[in-house]
Amino acid sequence: MSLNDKEWLIEVFENRSAFALRYRTKLFDEVSQFQNVQIFQTEFMGRALILDGCYMLTERDAAIYHEMLVHPAMSALPAPSHVLVIGGGDGGAVTQIVKYPKVRSVTLCEIDRMVVDACREFLPQIAAGLDDPRVQVLFEDGAAFVKAHAGEFDLILVDSTDPVGPAKTLFETSFYQSVKAALRDGGAAVFQTESPVFMSEVFLEAVGKLAGVFGDSRVYPYFATVPCYPGGLWSFTLCSDQVDPIKGPCSELSPALEQTLEYYTEEIRRAAFAAPAFVRRALSRQ
Amino acid sequence: MSLNDKEWLIEVFENRSAFALRYRTKLFDEVSQFQNVQIFQTEFMGRALILDGCYMLTERDAAIYHEMLVHPAMSALPAPSHVLVIGGGDGGAVTQIVKYPKVRSVTLCEIDRMVVDACREFLPQIAAGLDDPRVQVLFEDGAAFVKAHAGEFDLILVDSTDPVGPAKTLFETSFYQSVKAALRDGGAAVFQTESPVFMSEVFLEAVGKLAGVFGDSRVYPYFATVPCYPGGLWSFTLCSDQVDPIKGPCSELSPALEQTLEYYTEEIRRAAFAAPAFVRRALSRQ
Repeated sequence: MSLNDKEWLIEVFENRSAFALRYRTKLFDEVSQFQNVQIFQTEFMGRALILDGCYMLTERDAAIYHEMLVHPAMSALPAPSHVLVIGGGDGGAVTQIVKYPKVRSVTLCEIDRMVVDACREFLPQIAAGLDDPRVQVLFEDGAAFVKAHAGEFDLILVDSTDPVGPAKTLFETSFYQSVKAALRDGGAAVFQTESPVFMSEVFLEAVGKLAGVFGDSRVYPYFATVPCYPGGLWSFTLCSDQVDPIKGPCSELSPALEQTLEYYTEEIRRAAFAAPAFVRRALSRQ
Repeated sequence: MSLNDKEWLIEVFENRSAFALRYRTKLFDEVSQFQNVQIFQTEFMGRALILDGCYMLTERDAAIYHEMLVHPAMSALPAPSHVLVIGGGDGGAVTQIVKYPKVRSVTLCEIDRMVVDACREFLPQIAAGLDDPRVQVLFEDGAAFVKAHAGEFDLILVDSTDPVGPAKTLFETSFYQSVKAALRDGGAAVFQTESPVFMSEVFLEAVGKLAGVFGDSRVYPYFATVPCYPGGLWSFTLCSDQVDPIKGPCSELSPALEQTLEYYTEEIRRAAFAAPAFVRRALSRQ
């Protein structure tokens, strides 16, 4: 059978693979200064946020991505007080971060106000953390912001879209240098670094550039499966001068926090840093 | 944009999600006594084997599935001499098994000769192991075969399609009992047990039934991401009275074997048994 876009929410990746969910209704569809922002009600995976035709999240699998972006670093950092999220306008990463009482401030720097407004309205559970009193939401360019705030953050999360359009600068060496400079002593940064299967060149280039900035042995790629992303297997890269998320020490999850998590466990954290053979070989050739 | 089936090889899962690859040519398309067997040349992931409209493998990601089906059990078993594969007519699992010099016999029991013939012709690298002199290929019903061969195998791999059509019996308790009975003392069986995300009910039911047959503490679900399968995250379940793939002991991969592997590593084996929180909770409620 064929799939038509009146019934199916279709993401075509590089004109060679596609993922689709049947949808019931289109809830939001506007073009901002930066991109096309859409929210659909799907049959199977709840609501879906789509930016420029690409799945950013569905209600059903959003927790996998957000938990894996946030909790490995939060477990590894001894005292993460001040956190910066660049991108992440859906609020999902912030909603995970504010679960930690020890966090004193969270700054969300999202370039596109429309994403935040649409998610607050149509994905309120995912965006809930944005209402926490410790959170400040800024609508600014992330690269410029981070450049102007050296030495301020214990943790910086780069929750970007793909390296085309507004997020292109968030995959450049100069940006990675600014992120490193914006960390406080002993801090860490985590970058979403695309699919090591379907976008292996982008992944390898990003990890290579990060290794150039943070040092070869201070860059820790890790992996999780996000069903609505091309290739399913997705990568994140944790970078830190001092923190080692593999050897630890890592703090344990509190029972209260653990109950709120859908994907992340201590075991999953340890497992996530195991790279498939083809990834390990490609990284070691760099 | 819409996707048409003249250019796209589309698998629709339960009329609610879909995965598609653009294809160049259809190489094979026939209906056997059991199912529709098709092989396509795709643009992105090499050739794809499709049974009754479902992706079984692509050349690009087949190694993930076959390596993860075979090597965890082969590492955990002290002396796997006689191996049975039920289903697996593409030959991919057998091709992994014959990499071990210590294996003395491999029996492939595939109900559909057309699958084997088509894969030998159009997917020769994946099917290569079928030509190993230790391999016997039988075109029989797997459930009947295993029932008639009690106590004969050190390892049984159930490489089935989904529990509809010809593979339905391979998800029934009576079949699981026959598999257990067909193991030699200290043997192990591995079952593909579907997606814990997109087919969580089938997964949980299969693991529940296996626990009923092998015992709660002798059933070890594990996970890998297969991009062309619905939901990406896929499960396998290892069952054994004596072997413990988590606590070990597990033998190390020989350097010669390691070089041939695209996905599996010792680290991946240890990591694969970590269950996402939602899977762990669902399993503990059973």
